Amino acid sequence: MKIAVLGGDGFVGWPTSLHLSARGHEVHIIDNLSRRWIDTELGVQSLTPMDSIQERTRIWHQETGRRIHFHLLDLASEYERLKSWLAEHKPDAIVHFAQQRAAPYSMKSDRHKNYTVNNNVNATHHVLNAIVEVGLDAHLVHLGTMGVYGYSTIGAAIPEGYLSVGVETLSGDTVQQEILYPANPGSIYHMTKCLDQLLFQYYAKNDGLRITDLHQGIVWGTHTEETRLHDQLINRFDYDGDYGTVLNRFLIQAAIGYPLTVHGTGGQTRAFIHIQDSVRCIEIALSNAPKRGDRVKIFNQMTETHRVRDLAEMVAKLTGAKITYLPNPRKEAPENDLIVKNDQFMELGLNPITLKEGLLAEVVDVARKYSYRVDRNRIPCVSAWTKDLAPTIERDPEGRRLKSVS
Amino acid sequence: MKIAVLGGDGFVGWPTSLHLSARGHEVHIIDNLSRRWIDTELGVQSLTPMDSIQERTRIWHQETGRRIHFHLLDLASEYERLKSWLAEHKPDAIVHFAQQRAAPYSMKSDRHKNYTVNNNVNATHHVLNAIVEVGLDAHLVHLGTMGVYGYSTIGAAIPEGYLSVGVETLSGDTVQQEILYPANPGSIYHMTKCLDQLLFQYYAKNDGLRITDLHQGIVWGTHTEETRLHDQLINRFDYDGDYGTVLNRFLIQAAIGYPLTVHGTGGQTRAFIHIQDSVRCIEIALSNAPKRGDRVKIFNQMTETHRVRDLAEMVAKLTGAKITYLPNPRKEAPENDLIVKNDQFMELGLNPITLKEGLLAEVVDVARKYSYRVDRNRIPCVSAWTKDLAPTIERDPEGRRLKSVS
Ligand SMILES: NC(=O)c1ccc[n+]([C@@H]2O[C@H](COP(=O)([O-])OP(=O)(O)OC[C@H]3O[C@@H](n4cnc5c(N)ncnc54)[C@H](O)[C@@H]3O)[C@@H](O)[C@H]2O)c1
Ligand SMILES: NC(=O)c1ccc[n+]([C@@H]2O[C@H](COP(=O)([O-])OP(=O)(O)OC[C@H]3O[C@@H](n4cnc5c(N)ncnc54)[C@H](O)[C@@H]3O)[C@@H](O)[C@H]2O)c1
Repeated sequence: MKIAVLGGDGFVGWPTSLHLSARGHEVHIIDNLSRRWIDTELGVQSLTPMDSIQERTRIWHQETGRRIHFHLLDLASEYERLKSWLAEHKPDAIVHFAQQRAAPYSMKSDRHKNYTVNNNVNATHHVLNAIVEVGLDAHLVHLGTMGVYGYSTIGAAIPEGYLSVGVETLSGDTVQQEILYPANPGSIYHMTKCLDQLLFQYYAKNDGLRITDLHQGIVWGTHTEETRLHDQLINRFDYDGDYGTVLNRFLIQAAIGYPLTVHGTGGQTRAFIHIQDSVRCIEIALSNAPKRGDRVKIFNQMTETHRVRDLAEMVAKLTGAKITYLPNPRKEAPENDLIVKNDQFMELGLNPITLKEGLLAEVVDVARKYSYRVDRNRIPCVSAWTKDLAPTIERDPEGRRLKSVS
Repeated sequence: MKIAVLGGDGFVGWPTSLHLSARGHEVHIIDNLSRRWIDTELGVQSLTPMDSIQERTRIWHQETGRRIHFHLLDLASEYERLKSWLAEHKPDAIVHFAQQRAAPYSMKSDRHKNYTVNNNVNATHHVLNAIVEVGLDAHLVHLGTMGVYGYSTIGAAIPEGYLSVGVETLSGDTVQQEILYPANPGSIYHMTKCLDQLLFQYYAKNDGLRITDLHQGIVWGTHTEETRLHDQLINRFDYDGDYGTVLNRFLIQAAIGYPLTVHGTGGQTRAFIHIQDSVRCIEIALSNAPKRGDRVKIFNQMTETHRVRDLAEMVAKLTGAKITYLPNPRKEAPENDLIVKNDQFMELGLNPITLKEGLLAEVVDVARKYSYRVDRNRIPCVSAWTKDLAPTIERDPEGRRLKSVS
């Protein structure tokens, strides 16, 4: 297949591009490299030394003889170039990672809120609009998030995208209907993924587009089979308070002797998936496209759920690290249960890598190796969800070096 | 109250501004005048000769001694100016009409789809974001549409925004929950109003904003008590295939001896409201604001439902006009029932103006008076909902003078 990987320079996009290229697909990365610019804005960098996308694809060719093509293009502001690109290359499938994906970054300031909404909505809408306009029959696979469901459930398991509900009709009968799971996003970032869902539903219905939406859990780990092939193929590994996600942050904190920072009681239950499985799931989704006229196919792309404080304890036990509890900058329920269905991927043969698999230690090893690159001041999460929560965060006189206080 | 009317130069915004000013409120219109530009783009004009906004507000002052202030500002692209404006003026309430509101216009081409999504999402998000940032406690009243519900119902009455559904829990019990009515938009325009709903839900929950969303039916009529005061206070009156809405179009067609153009079988049932009631409803909504922390308050702003072909027959009977049936450019069910609840406005004292009230004839009179301004070539609706439906529309060699063919 000819596959366009939108956002292929990112944390999940890069190993996905390598994986699909290794399987013999013709891979084209489209990215505006905005994520690298955000590193510059925040004064942070990937824990792992990450080469330019041009250099990484050169090394991939050198090591494997395969080519991954790179195209610099901003999906949110260059609609006409996107359209021409699709008309010229006519990909069979499009994997869409290209959005601002950090909840804390989306909450930093009003500018960041506007950027996230504008970038994410327009990127998704332009892709859909251009597919229709060019008359492509490409299968679109989008990376969504488990966060669209919200985390306070009513004691029902979270289904795969669609919820069966009973609705009372005029005659007094109750009829059963499948509806898109009612959105309940916890941040501006998560909200944009809920907006995406409506865009997908509309374009599948009106224009018959074939769309798969993957509601992904929190990705952990850093290496995949392909990134291990050469030092310069190494994946991005975020540890800062904005882009670092909870489990990877704990593992890095442990590696550098920084206390594991748990927000609130740590009673939040979250869904997780290892980066290697994430990449495999995308491949599985690509080989199981919906038919024209089908509704949007939704998978839950996660393999296990854990309470945040249990994860902290697990990492503490493995590494001897200490745990500190900080005030929670997020507006969310302090404790929640989470039961998630992922039957579709399991039936299609996913054999999950769980936390027990020993890969936690591998991540700590990677983190130790590059620990000299860590700026400890960048570790705390300093975005507050509301103005009321802002005082829980400490700022220096320039407002730049920020630390959470307990 | 000090009230900002966003989009106050439009068809509903202008009579609302007059009505609120007449009731003694301090009214500030914010508008980028994009609707006037779209007239220019399409080569159409309001049936009624409409003065500049500056001139209209001057006449209003001359006639009543009251001032309506006008501020030229693009909500979608001038966030910083919006924020400064709100910080300076601190309105008690904000009425938000400022969106691209025609479904056919939103479906004209990929450029129009992008424009509608970008304009409408960013306009709404900027307003919400700025209210939070400035720390205003203003009540936001937004004009949504009945179209967010979609028009194929399951034989249940359409509730006011929230639907009670039964969800099965893990223990096998069914619990009853109120959810936002599942979105089922029929065009890009309607879809943006569904996106708005999620933005409102999020900002009400996360930031405690006080928001009312009015799901309005199709507005008919042209005069209100205040626009009748002076010729130059006359309201905009759209008759073209993009902006003209069904009942008003029939009345104009009748006035100029053009056959009433019914799309498909005319079996679509729609909800309607007279412009005078629309204006009253907004006043009622303003005096019944939700409290901080409440969920978004949703009203159905409509007073009666009718099947399109019944309306055509009613107008034909009143005026002697003929009816022609044209292929439907919209992708929708050919026939549907529609039962809509509007209990909240009725309980708050709305005394609806119905089609029986004799105002149909008034509209025909206005249309006859200005019939010399009608360009008959602009009457057909020439936007097709999908590429498959496009051949139902006839284009001249320049692709400009377009006519529907049956
Ligand atoms: N990392 C996780 O734990 C996780 C969990 C759930 C879902 N997801 C989703 O998976 C996707 C990928 O996540 P990631 O961790 O790889 O994110 P990332 O930030 O590392 O990668 C996103 C890439 O998209 C690019 N991009 C952003 N906006 C663009 C635009 N307008 N035009 C072109 N390129 C643009 C960025 O430059 C970046 O390379 C995201 O959509 C994210 O929401 C990630
Ligand atoms: N007219 C109807 O039958 C009807 C029915 C249901 C809902 N509504 C809703 O009511 C609202 C008003 O409808 P209308 O018929 O008066 O529409 P309109 O097009 O006549 O007025 C909209 C006004 O908003 C302004 N505007 C648009 N984008 C803007 C931006 N980015 N910044 C500043 N100003 C901007 C336009 O210039 C225009 O004056 C709309 O939101 C519409 O969706 C209308």
